[in-house]
Amino acid sequence: MRPRIQAGFELDTQLEADTCPVLWLTLCEVRLMNDRRWPWLILIPQRANIEELHDLTPLDQAMLTFETNLVAAALKQATACHKINSGALGNVVHQLHFHIVARNEGDTNWPGPVWGFGEREPYRKEDRHQLIAKLKDAISSQTI
Amino acid sequence: MRPRIQAGFELDTQLEADTCPVLWLTLCEVRLMNDRRWPWLILIPQRANIEELHDLTPLDQAMLTFETNLVAAALKQATACHKINSGALGNVVHQLHFHIVARNEGDTNWPGPVWGFGEREPYRKEDRHQLIAKLKDAISSQTI
Repeated sequence: MRPRIQAGFELDTQLEADTCPVLWLTLCEVRLMNDRRWPWLILIPQRANIEELHDLTPLDQAMLTFETNLVAAALKQATACHKINSGALGNVVHQLHFHIVARNEGDTNWPGPVWGFGEREPYRKEDRHQLIAKLKDAISSQTI
Repeated sequence: MRPRIQAGFELDTQLEADTCPVLWLTLCEVRLMNDRRWPWLILIPQRANIEELHDLTPLDQAMLTFETNLVAAALKQATACHKINSGALGNVVHQLHFHIVARNEGDTNWPGPVWGFGEREPYRKEDRHQLIAKLKDAISSQTI
């Protein structure tokens, strides 16, 4: 699938620095948080100047729902995790982005949230490449 | 609007104890977290045995998107907050429920998340009644 980027959209530099590209869906760019404590994907709707979910158009809201649910199902399948945590916060990075995180009992900060906890622990490069390949396959094989 | 409750749906007892009823939308019951640190609403889809967003039917996913965005817009308007935080975690209470929280710079644990932080601080009864009345008005006056 090809990206369909709205004029004026540019990925936030902090998001870009903390994450690695996985693939592009119709509305969103999907990126992996470079933090090996949890398998953690971020969907960024390619829309300029949007900070809240409810500021998207109704069609974009519906697209985002389909894309987040597709990615969540794929992440759960690929990691065999116990629970998906998802959310949109945006207290630090203002550009609208939606988190989808694979959680397991006993993981770092369980059952607390992943946001704002401790320091990011980057993947080793080969582990990251392997996980991204696995996630790409899992997302691409989902149907909606 | 009348509740349309699926047979077998019962509100989780922990959710019921921590929150107070606000109103019913078509899919979700809307409740206020009884914690005066943040204006915090919870939407519970009235569906039995669902723990993940992506386990809802596509129609229920679409309904939930409309209802969460309606409630988020109303909460932002009613509280004049700086940012909405939203999410579905379910690490402690398994019944699917969606959080919508009004955040402001400098509020408790800003810019960190509300989940798992400190102890809940219940409203005084009259403050809670006043806030619930205001939120009911704001939600009822939204159009989708």
